[in-house]
Amino acid sequence: MSVEPFDVVDLIRTKRDRGTLSTPQIDWLVDAYTRGYVADEQMSAMAMAIFLNGMEREEIRDLTLAMIASGERMEFSSLSKPTTDKHSTGGVGDKITLPLAPLVASFGVAVPQLSGRGLGHTGGTLDKLESIPGWRARLSNDEMLAQLDAVGAVICAAGSGLAPADGKLYALRDITGTVECIPLIASSIMSKKIAEGTASLVLDVKFGSGAFLKDPAQSRELAETMVRLGTDAGVSTVALLTNMNVPLGFAIGNANEVRESVEVLAGGGPADVVELTVALAREMLALAGQLDADVEGHLRDGKAMDAWRAMISAQGGDPDAELPVAREQHVVTADRDGVLVEQQALPFGIAAWRLGAGRARKEDPVQHAAGIDLHAKPGDRVRAGEPLFTLSADEPARFDRALEALEGAYRIGDEGDEVLDGGPLIADRIA
Amino acid sequence: MSVEPFDVVDLIRTKRDRGTLSTPQIDWLVDAYTRGYVADEQMSAMAMAIFLNGMEREEIRDLTLAMIASGERMEFSSLSKPTTDKHSTGGVGDKITLPLAPLVASFGVAVPQLSGRGLGHTGGTLDKLESIPGWRARLSNDEMLAQLDAVGAVICAAGSGLAPADGKLYALRDITGTVECIPLIASSIMSKKIAEGTASLVLDVKFGSGAFLKDPAQSRELAETMVRLGTDAGVSTVALLTNMNVPLGFAIGNANEVRESVEVLAGGGPADVVELTVALAREMLALAGQLDADVEGHLRDGKAMDAWRAMISAQGGDPDAELPVAREQHVVTADRDGVLVEQQALPFGIAAWRLGAGRARKEDPVQHAAGIDLHAKPGDRVRAGEPLFTLSADEPARFDRALEALEGAYRIGDEGDEVLDGGPLIADRIA
Repeated sequence: MSVEPFDVVDLIRTKRDRGTLSTPQIDWLVDAYTRGYVADEQMSAMAMAIFLNGMEREEIRDLTLAMIASGERMEFSSLSKPTTDKHSTGGVGDKITLPLAPLVASFGVAVPQLSGRGLGHTGGTLDKLESIPGWRARLSNDEMLAQLDAVGAVICAAGSGLAPADGKLYALRDITGTVECIPLIASSIMSKKIAEGTASLVLDVKFGSGAFLKDPAQSRELAETMVRLGTDAGVSTVALLTNMNVPLGFAIGNANEVRESVEVLAGGGPADVVELTVALAREMLALAGQLDADVEGHLRDGKAMDAWRAMISAQGGDPDAELPVAREQHVVTADRDGVLVEQQALPFGIAAWRLGAGRARKEDPVQHAAGIDLHAKPGDRVRAGEPLFTLSADEPARFDRALEALEGAYRIGDEGDEVLDGGPLIADRIA
Repeated sequence: MSVEPFDVVDLIRTKRDRGTLSTPQIDWLVDAYTRGYVADEQMSAMAMAIFLNGMEREEIRDLTLAMIASGERMEFSSLSKPTTDKHSTGGVGDKITLPLAPLVASFGVAVPQLSGRGLGHTGGTLDKLESIPGWRARLSNDEMLAQLDAVGAVICAAGSGLAPADGKLYALRDITGTVECIPLIASSIMSKKIAEGTASLVLDVKFGSGAFLKDPAQSRELAETMVRLGTDAGVSTVALLTNMNVPLGFAIGNANEVRESVEVLAGGGPADVVELTVALAREMLALAGQLDADVEGHLRDGKAMDAWRAMISAQGGDPDAELPVAREQHVVTADRDGVLVEQQALPFGIAAWRLGAGRARKEDPVQHAAGIDLHAKPGDRVRAGEPLFTLSADEPARFDRALEALEGAYRIGDEGDEVLDGGPLIADRIA
């Protein structure tokens, strides 16, 4: 039996009793957990103690660095371009990465976007892109570097070598009720992004009903924590606090979100998706040294679309292929004239999930054509009998449970009623 | 996959967010954990949430009843005598069960004492008795009933069929920093005692440096919680709050504690051991219907000793056998004249443990002859050069680490200095 410098029960007790863990203690804990010397049941007790008693700034930094040290780090210094990346904490209808990565790349900046899959009511970027025939999410490091050099944008799956301690801890948190915890969310996101090797990073931290952390004050704290972690690790980091009370755009699903992204890249698309894409692109380009890039211009003149087509093709996808369409549709219409005053992100996300756009367990497949298309957004006038939204699924049996989730999720009011959209889309900027 | 009525992550979240678990939720949780459907890492997150957020009175009752329901219940209604039992929360030099069980049995009352082994700095009753050649801790239920009928007193190991959920949860708490938690301690002790089938129960709840819960207010809360649990389950229950700042008696170990117990049964022995034995015996006999039993009389006239000899013989032990003696001794003497004003239970317990009287891991053996014999107690006058205590061990290499634990653990002051013994031995009675 090897002699360990710390006793894990002592460390759990320290955090349980509101004490502070030292740098060597956290380094040891993460390493011992990755090696399997600290058991899952000990780490979950620690995670609950962290959830309830919090962590000091230094502890969060140490935890992040220890998780980075548990695996490999990527390196892009051989590229002739600056690198920048974006991370969103996840929302309903959040397809922003799809138009954003090629848009930024069209300015000669490299965007090495390692993305994830959806779990629960929030979608996953890889799931959306996999609705394009032929497109593949998995690239080797060499393929990724070559594509960054040639095309500028890559959206692909993170290899398991990046922050493996985080992968293990995240799976544990998911089954032990310890997900919604700022120190653990911040260190999980930032360990992967820092290990990914980007020089700069823009965070889209969401608040509101469709976000992980609903409370704007908590989202702000998460944003501030992550900006500090990035900056301390030498990654120029900025965060936008954005409103996720209402779904982003008109499409919630996978294939339909790709269609909407292509509209944005063609110079059209929903106003909110365009607004957020442009704002995030400006932040990323500014961090990469381009302060006065004509972002809207590249959406209008086709340069962003060209980068999109090159990016999809480079990963085996056919940018001109037909996207899948669901076998069954169900249209919900307005029951009166009036103004749509409410459209809550969370129930719409849950409904799309139940239609098959999301997965209940990690190993489940998604149905790429399933989802919801909205025909009106909060503030829009509607007339009795007009369609409000369309549900799509491959199996009609799924409509009932989706409609159940949507009970009370939207409301038609009268002209002059307050529109409950939670305020402006971009609430604040944290640098 | 079976459909479960509850989602364990929802239950963990409820307790994490300071909510209350319902009776069906707790019943399901304990059953699902016993069956292995709820994983250790989920139960340890729950235990930490309970540790930090507490439990309502009804939740503690439900948890206790669910742990009882996880296994078998013993039944003593076929006996022609009333049953009573005692449980101590554990201390240093606490050999009270040894004289107490035969003393109470000498009045025609049955004492079905299911005991445990020592872990950490507190000793275990079974370890002490196993220093008697031939004595065996494991009895079948039929052997136990026969002995209760013939002799009245049984001290034996609890079978694994009694509250198995508690056995599983206790082992988990031990490695996840969730031991010192009133709802979990109370439900653990009381589930075993209620399942054991005794009609009445006296609890010796300790406070002070050598106790599990050092704070008297916490010990009081534990005592009140356990008395309520027993009473609600139909077991007449009384608790004494007793002082564990100073070791009980002069002997700390195993064989030497048996010797001291025999002295008490012979009408002698240390004043504190006699005082606590007599007080607990009175409480047990009162609950069994004998309000005016001449307890001291049975210590003087040999009736308690007869019951002891019958009890030891019935379990294969030889009451006349020589007890083991350690190979090595180390005597510590007073370095000045004065009064012993301090003798802290915890360091003396740790020192005895390090000498070999206790075990670091459940599977380790104990060294029956190892331990400490005190020659003075707080308040006693001592003279320079006189022995204060003697350490005994089979390996002399153990003395150094034991002496390390004892640094600052005792102090000789001047006549008139305050004696730091933490006050009277029996601080309160809770019924």
